[in-house]
Amino acid sequence: MYVINLFMYRHNNIILVKCEIMTGYLLENLNFASMPENGTSYGIVDDGAIAVDGRKIAWCGERPQLPSRYSSWRSYDLKQRFLTPGLIDCHTHIVHGGNRVSEFEMRLQGMSYQEITEQGGGINATLEQTRRLSVSELVEQALPRIDALMAEGVCTVEIKSGYGLDAKTELDMLRAARQIGREREIVVKTSFLGAHLAPPNYRDQPEQYLEKVCIPTLQKAATEGLVDAVDGFCETVAFSDGQLEALFSHAESLGLPVKLHAEQLSHSGGCQLAARFRALSADHLEFAKEEDVIALRKSRTVAVLLPGAYYTLKQSQKPPVKILRKHGVPIAIATDCNPGSSPLNSILTAMNLSCTLFELTPQEALAGITVSAAKALGLTEVGQVKTGKTANFAVWNVSSPSELAYRIGFNHLAGRIYEGKIPSSLDQP
Amino acid sequence: MYVINLFMYRHNNIILVKCEIMTGYLLENLNFASMPENGTSYGIVDDGAIAVDGRKIAWCGERPQLPSRYSSWRSYDLKQRFLTPGLIDCHTHIVHGGNRVSEFEMRLQGMSYQEITEQGGGINATLEQTRRLSVSELVEQALPRIDALMAEGVCTVEIKSGYGLDAKTELDMLRAARQIGREREIVVKTSFLGAHLAPPNYRDQPEQYLEKVCIPTLQKAATEGLVDAVDGFCETVAFSDGQLEALFSHAESLGLPVKLHAEQLSHSGGCQLAARFRALSADHLEFAKEEDVIALRKSRTVAVLLPGAYYTLKQSQKPPVKILRKHGVPIAIATDCNPGSSPLNSILTAMNLSCTLFELTPQEALAGITVSAAKALGLTEVGQVKTGKTANFAVWNVSSPSELAYRIGFNHLAGRIYEGKIPSSLDQP
Repeated sequence: MYVINLFMYRHNNIILVKCEIMTGYLLENLNFASMPENGTSYGIVDDGAIAVDGRKIAWCGERPQLPSRYSSWRSYDLKQRFLTPGLIDCHTHIVHGGNRVSEFEMRLQGMSYQEITEQGGGINATLEQTRRLSVSELVEQALPRIDALMAEGVCTVEIKSGYGLDAKTELDMLRAARQIGREREIVVKTSFLGAHLAPPNYRDQPEQYLEKVCIPTLQKAATEGLVDAVDGFCETVAFSDGQLEALFSHAESLGLPVKLHAEQLSHSGGCQLAARFRALSADHLEFAKEEDVIALRKSRTVAVLLPGAYYTLKQSQKPPVKILRKHGVPIAIATDCNPGSSPLNSILTAMNLSCTLFELTPQEALAGITVSAAKALGLTEVGQVKTGKTANFAVWNVSSPSELAYRIGFNHLAGRIYEGKIPSSLDQP
Repeated sequence: MYVINLFMYRHNNIILVKCEIMTGYLLENLNFASMPENGTSYGIVDDGAIAVDGRKIAWCGERPQLPSRYSSWRSYDLKQRFLTPGLIDCHTHIVHGGNRVSEFEMRLQGMSYQEITEQGGGINATLEQTRRLSVSELVEQALPRIDALMAEGVCTVEIKSGYGLDAKTELDMLRAARQIGREREIVVKTSFLGAHLAPPNYRDQPEQYLEKVCIPTLQKAATEGLVDAVDGFCETVAFSDGQLEALFSHAESLGLPVKLHAEQLSHSGGCQLAARFRALSADHLEFAKEEDVIALRKSRTVAVLLPGAYYTLKQSQKPPVKILRKHGVPIAIATDCNPGSSPLNSILTAMNLSCTLFELTPQEALAGITVSAAKALGLTEVGQVKTGKTANFAVWNVSSPSELAYRIGFNHLAGRIYEGKIPSSLDQP
């Protein structure tokens, strides 16, 4: 019942050794949503109990069924609160320099995202602000945003590069992402997004950029252990499916999974490309057609919907939710937290937006930030309340999990349990 | 430089005396938005200084101009943060029983607000949940929502009755609102909304309800000092302009100002009624026409826009923002925090919604929750940073006030100064 974890890590050239002694305990007097694999129900357990051993769920189920071997463990009374898996934000650009308030104002005057991008605004504005910053400055700017997600129960976050588009800054963004994972109690999964856009000095030579900058940088980043997946932006204003094929082949040769920004502003062949490479996820999908959805189903690719961008860009074409449902493609949702098209820093608001704008049910929205979001990141240990999974939980002051999607701008979180660690807010008599 | 405030109030039949000794102090090293009267600019002061004496602003302006008589006062270094007036949420139904999660799910299945109301759902569902609660239970349920607003810098909140529609519960809701003003450091302005809807037992006799229940209850509430304004819902599903005229005449005879839910779901004559009674505000306004706007201009009535309801109800007809601008009608925005049509609990999210959905500029959005919101409540002492006004401030970790409307679901607040009281978060060396 005692687990001793030793961590060694380097911080400013000092080797730190952290020692944690974890003991088994019980969570009792709660209801929980187990979020089963198929993503079609909450899997609610009333009057539940969860036995946590170290960082793992040793047992979970109805309290009367609790095996006697756990009954002597220390018990925490959750006072009839509702527990869900720790939340997962599976698509963010949360590491970035500065902001784009002026672009926000321009869009309010009616300019489209495409027009802003074509006029050298958009991503390029963030490029300049990001390239100026050191790794520690990137971390410093991102941490308040990370803290805001954690305060809503997020235990896993994906962070992309893609605002450097030169070797140094792309690597620095990924290093910043890794550092965030060391400085905060959150799992960070990185995606290399060197193929976000061709930078200004390669404006008309996207293939040259991919060959001379992007792929060599991916190689370096992978060698340094900075990359968990390779991402790209398949769009008329970015890269074609044909151009991204070379990058994805390189990812494949490195043994790295891929994901893709696909069919966001136009139908550009992204889904078919993603499916050919068995991508973990295809993201956005406003212009995806039924044949695209069928391809995603066959390749077991998760559809990641990003209502913050749809809302901010005032798009009118919605992603094909009914067709995704019809073919049983898992749907994840995420904040897409970025300084331009989705300055959304709240996973709970993303839930509400996905319900109100895309007609997801509250249950689908919760699956979208737990079990299906885990799949979109290729993770098998998180996203569910199930024996053997990581003990990441969010504990809520609600009686039904649908309330999480219902109120807007209200945080119901009573406490976040990360890798088995009980926060002081839940350790009350 | 010393102000001694003595407060006496009753709490559970005990007389409490609270004594505060307030001394003058300076806020320095900050930029601020003064939010001038006309509502058309931020009135930004760079390198500002503010002298606070007791609960009031003794002086504010550019630091080099600070009169020497204040230079010896204790100084707080705001570290180049940005200061705005304390925020004002001028239209809420934040006191209510329970929630309407199931209705949220029904709407996702395509049912309209009108259909839900006609089927006995909507407001009536909240009616039942609210009537069951005591004053202290109403307060207990509302406080977490109030705390969430205060955490975003709100210093003044309007709270309506209207979920009782019988004498006892209407009075209890207003008593709960008053109690919130005593239990928290926030000014509560109450609106009597007995004319929210005819309750089920008066379904086909709205005039009878107004005469036999609503007006006598208003009389009692006013006698008890519970009412700051009288409100109504002018709509096909609620009351006609003709029916509300009797109520408004009664309000006039009591010396109480009026406000009105007008032209939300259809063009029902609410604006003209509001203008005839020189209402403080006409709220919603999606179906208002130019002649209505002209009438509001003449009666100096504020247009309160409620983007949370527009968004949640998936309305397509937007309020006539350009026409309001053309005629110089002050625009306020608010959360409309309520359990049905606007479960929005964030004034910052209301700002973003008003920009993205109604094309307000970030400056108009901030005026809408400061100077114009004060007007919508008939308040002259708050909503601006100006000599003589109440020292209510929100201090933000932003460099431009436009950032407040730009990020979604991110709270930039560094500290809230209420009636001159410096919070510990700002009292740092």
